[in-house]
Amino acid sequence: MPEFALIDRLRRRVAARDDVVLGIGDDAALLQPPPGEQLAVTTDTLNVGTHFPAETPPAELGWKTLAVNLSDLAAMGAQPRWCTLSLSLPQDDAAWLDVFADGFFALADAHGIALVGGDTTRGPLSLSVTAIGSVPAGAALRRDGARVGDEIWVTGTPGEAAAALSLWQAGKLDVTRACADPARETLRQRLLRPTPRVDAGLRLRGLAHACVDVSDGLLADLGHVCARSGVGAELRLDALPIPSALRGFVPAQVRPWQFAGGDDYELCFTAAPADRDSVAQALAFAGTEGAVIGRVVAGDRVIVVDPAGQPWQPPRTGYQHFA
Amino acid sequence: MPEFALIDRLRRRVAARDDVVLGIGDDAALLQPPPGEQLAVTTDTLNVGTHFPAETPPAELGWKTLAVNLSDLAAMGAQPRWCTLSLSLPQDDAAWLDVFADGFFALADAHGIALVGGDTTRGPLSLSVTAIGSVPAGAALRRDGARVGDEIWVTGTPGEAAAALSLWQAGKLDVTRACADPARETLRQRLLRPTPRVDAGLRLRGLAHACVDVSDGLLADLGHVCARSGVGAELRLDALPIPSALRGFVPAQVRPWQFAGGDDYELCFTAAPADRDSVAQALAFAGTEGAVIGRVVAGDRVIVVDPAGQPWQPPRTGYQHFA
Repeated sequence: MPEFALIDRLRRRVAARDDVVLGIGDDAALLQPPPGEQLAVTTDTLNVGTHFPAETPPAELGWKTLAVNLSDLAAMGAQPRWCTLSLSLPQDDAAWLDVFADGFFALADAHGIALVGGDTTRGPLSLSVTAIGSVPAGAALRRDGARVGDEIWVTGTPGEAAAALSLWQAGKLDVTRACADPARETLRQRLLRPTPRVDAGLRLRGLAHACVDVSDGLLADLGHVCARSGVGAELRLDALPIPSALRGFVPAQVRPWQFAGGDDYELCFTAAPADRDSVAQALAFAGTEGAVIGRVVAGDRVIVVDPAGQPWQPPRTGYQHFA
Repeated sequence: MPEFALIDRLRRRVAARDDVVLGIGDDAALLQPPPGEQLAVTTDTLNVGTHFPAETPPAELGWKTLAVNLSDLAAMGAQPRWCTLSLSLPQDDAAWLDVFADGFFALADAHGIALVGGDTTRGPLSLSVTAIGSVPAGAALRRDGARVGDEIWVTGTPGEAAAALSLWQAGKLDVTRACADPARETLRQRLLRPTPRVDAGLRLRGLAHACVDVSDGLLADLGHVCARSGVGAELRLDALPIPSALRGFVPAQVRPWQFAGGDDYELCFTAAPADRDSVAQALAFAGTEGAVIGRVVAGDRVIVVDPAGQPWQPPRTGYQHFA
């Protein structure tokens, strides 16, 4: 029964939390939710061949599997608490699991989220996490709260992960080892070890009117906010700063990565113009950059305007899976 | 973006619950936990080729994917509340999804559990559910509470699912359609549409000292209870009634199915002998049969004794996956 041995290998590495009454090892975990708070629950799955190629290093898979779920909690303004992991492995490979766990628990421990349950099964490599956080009742950052006149913000430097994916797919980036070139190494890290903006999400409670995490691409994800809020958006093509790691590329490459690339796990949110300084301060306390890239308008379209005032469209919208 | 269309197809079928503040469609679901209760959280995954063969009908997969998780909540004595579904599909197939949903929601609606989130991805067929229930603080049925002298109970008729699997693997049972023979049809249903003993679990709160669901086989799962409780168990080979659907087989076939087969999703639990009538009544109210099959003893071994007083061992212990 290798399944039990693999689960046990993970169990030994779980950090304690007072609100875990009973962790891995029974039919279900028992958890004590905080009084007066609501739960935020999200599930995201990564499959080999679709979301990552087989040569992806296991430590990076461990990190990213959790990161994409923490990013969803961040987008709700939720405090991470507990998670479960369903791990399908083609064979019983304890060495692989240990390295996977290095990445997984590095991020889990940084955010104090406890692994409380899981399932290890035989099958093509697939990683599914359900993450549970909490948020005071009514304080969650939802997609449906954007208001006409809001400023549209995005954290960090979207586009870098898409650039790395593009280079990788073109055979110009070996993601299995560190790159000597610092800019390339930055891109590689951004793709393999995205930083979920958990602290920024917490600090944006009471400031952001609507929020989404950028996983499918900025335009696509902002489109979800607009659809749920019943509004449109107008973005400025030159409002997104070009990070140093992308300065070696021409704008015709960079802009589509920034506006339509995926896998960034930044936060895109809207807030009142009067709160601009408060938002900037909140992001600064969270150690995250942020930029105002446009505004919420009436209507139902998301448009991008170039410096000449002409509409701009990326060659494709939304994130294309690896395979 | 077929992913969004598939999720939307499921969202339309979710029954409302007052404690779902925000369901499918945001970065995470928002849920209102009941005051004073603890959460029970479990994750189980079914992979094609490992847990089920490709020809398994989708409606049965929908049912069983949820059933195996509800069974874990039942074994904790937890009230089902919410679940998430991660669904990996080899292609975008709305017709398949609709039939899958027929089975999934038939069981979900019967137990009032709401699907609150999910992820549909491209990949080999794989189904992962995380189920969340609640239980008053301290009332959960755990694996670690068995006491020397307890009677060991099992609900229902374990062995039927293993019989069906055995017949299927031998080419003697077509699981893709109803069988004309009523006994065979009973076996087929038991494998494909197991009944999670949710009501029995709820009624056993305060009566059962320890509980586990029988998914890997009665001896294997009772072994987990004994290991966690620091006790041994002595079972009587003839204490398990042979259900009518298994009367056409010789005891040498039936006993291994009953004691070492998997996929039954019955409950195995221990209770004080003085509570025998109360337990019997609780099971009767839950509409579930039950039998005392042995007792908890000092030590750390699980043994089975035949009517002649000789130790009996199944040819194999524990559940063997389909492939």
